[in-house]
Amino acid sequence: MSWYHAPAIEPSDTHRHNAEKRQTQLTKPPGSLGELESLATLLAALQQTDTPQCDKVKITIFAADHGIAAEGVSAFPQSVTGQMVQNFASGGAAISVLAKSLNASLQVINIGTVDQLEPISGVEDQRIAAGTANFTVKSAMTEEQLQKALSIGQRAIKNALDEGVQLWIGGEMGIANTTSATALACAYFDIAAAEIVGPGTGLDNAGQIHKSAVIHKALDLFNASAQKPLKNLQYLGGFEIAALTGAYIAAAQAGIPVIVDGFICSVAALYAQAINPSITPWLLFSHQSAEPGHQQVLSAFEQQPILDLGLRLGEASGDATVLPLIRLACDLHNNMATFCEAEIDGKC
Amino acid sequence: MSWYHAPAIEPSDTHRHNAEKRQTQLTKPPGSLGELESLATLLAALQQTDTPQCDKVKITIFAADHGIAAEGVSAFPQSVTGQMVQNFASGGAAISVLAKSLNASLQVINIGTVDQLEPISGVEDQRIAAGTANFTVKSAMTEEQLQKALSIGQRAIKNALDEGVQLWIGGEMGIANTTSATALACAYFDIAAAEIVGPGTGLDNAGQIHKSAVIHKALDLFNASAQKPLKNLQYLGGFEIAALTGAYIAAAQAGIPVIVDGFICSVAALYAQAINPSITPWLLFSHQSAEPGHQQVLSAFEQQPILDLGLRLGEASGDATVLPLIRLACDLHNNMATFCEAEIDGKC
Repeated sequence: MSWYHAPAIEPSDTHRHNAEKRQTQLTKPPGSLGELESLATLLAALQQTDTPQCDKVKITIFAADHGIAAEGVSAFPQSVTGQMVQNFASGGAAISVLAKSLNASLQVINIGTVDQLEPISGVEDQRIAAGTANFTVKSAMTEEQLQKALSIGQRAIKNALDEGVQLWIGGEMGIANTTSATALACAYFDIAAAEIVGPGTGLDNAGQIHKSAVIHKALDLFNASAQKPLKNLQYLGGFEIAALTGAYIAAAQAGIPVIVDGFICSVAALYAQAINPSITPWLLFSHQSAEPGHQQVLSAFEQQPILDLGLRLGEASGDATVLPLIRLACDLHNNMATFCEAEIDGKC
Repeated sequence: MSWYHAPAIEPSDTHRHNAEKRQTQLTKPPGSLGELESLATLLAALQQTDTPQCDKVKITIFAADHGIAAEGVSAFPQSVTGQMVQNFASGGAAISVLAKSLNASLQVINIGTVDQLEPISGVEDQRIAAGTANFTVKSAMTEEQLQKALSIGQRAIKNALDEGVQLWIGGEMGIANTTSATALACAYFDIAAAEIVGPGTGLDNAGQIHKSAVIHKALDLFNASAQKPLKNLQYLGGFEIAALTGAYIAAAQAGIPVIVDGFICSVAALYAQAINPSITPWLLFSHQSAEPGHQQVLSAFEQQPILDLGLRLGEASGDATVLPLIRLACDLHNNMATFCEAEIDGKC
């Protein structure tokens, strides 16, 4: 049995029950804090505590290139992946600004840019290869590369656990990776690319039709709808997507709740859940992405996303945006007075 | 002409245009930060700046009692208003916890609890009367009381302006105030109470039918659908609602953007807009409340709410919850690198 088949930790029913009870005792009409109540209750069950906390948060961005970019499926040239890695490290990217504002630690892992980058302070070089292969021609990864990518995700979680992280956020960067994620979603749901294909970083209509055709070709090449999830992850995936898949599984095994970002991260979570269904309770979803395939992918999960702000950037930007709300949910749960403490008539 | 008819400050088209241009230059696909982009752009126009900021935020809660509570329209006894005022000051209420977490200043104004409260540190005593009158019998307020309530809202904004507040948040507390707000909404839209009546703090079905009947009686008594907004605010309003109405108008006149909370605050904003339509651009809406009348009220505004978390607490809790997102929108706008600064291929 591979490491990723080992069961996840079970959330604590006792702590969930305690948290639900406390929510009814706080000085507010029962249920009136809506999803802020459910978030606090869920985190209490996951963190096995009466006082859920998300102060110590780590954001890990996996960046990689995709051979499929050669098919002209992105509005940006492939060199942008490496340039954005530099931008993450130098503080100019959205996620860099967000991590700083939120006092969350930001880890950037180069898991396979097409070019070997100069050593950059703040970027870990864990390149598996110079990008994946063009999956209209051959498998995006070898089996060995897939295992490496999954393990890099696992290792990121081991490090987070050692650092006492209370909530983990994974993000991705990789020119053409909505093409890979869309192909994976199509294979999983056995649907045509045209049903869920989207603009990614900004394709026009003609570009999206071409992207659909490229995905269609790949799905045919591998007879993808008949394959097991791990095989499709190898054929159609990306290094950063597989690393996220490994990380989501490892986090659930380690008892660290994760927030899942938009379309690409949700596809990674879809495959994580398919490989190891016991991980499901550990996945929180931050936002409904503007990328059209996201809604389809979310239909496979119990949890629905917290925000709907029309985001479609990736880089874990949706996760970072929802983090302060999750922190407020914890603060309210832990620090509000009960009816008895506040001596409210008829409620104590 | 009364003070509340004076025109609001005009948002700056120049700063809006500059902000829109900057958003296209930042290192992300154009539009990919969705509503976080629009929020930053809107704030730039309102604050007349290239670097919108919401660090210095003031939350003012107006608390008052309602004579209509005598009709048995709330799940909580009337004494709870005063007890919650105490709870705001002592730090146990939701908004107290939120304000502390968000490093926002919290001002609590007792504008008319039914009992004279003992002096409480952190609560300003500006009681107009021992609650409003029961508006199934007579006008909730006298004309003089309405003018006082509006002016108390205006004064709160004057103080906020003196303190250099960049964004103002108003909240309310008052047992039975969803009944007053629902009556005001019905009068404005000329609709039956049954169409929008809701549970407030937790009425069951029978309670909501009774609440509808009470509102119906009052709308008839004053022939409310034929009255001007200021008259209905006097007949059916509450001190805290009228104070919020005054505050929203004064904020737009002073050039301070406001976030409008849930159902009751939105009704106050509805009347503010009806009295002085020039204020509209200054109103941001934080969240879609679970109270059923809220959607109807929001239909009168251009802006749609940012969050939909099933909140229905009041106390400006929705405003406080959205504040960190607005701050992140500003941080992203001000601190992300441009394509040129990050030397991204083909985009500079």
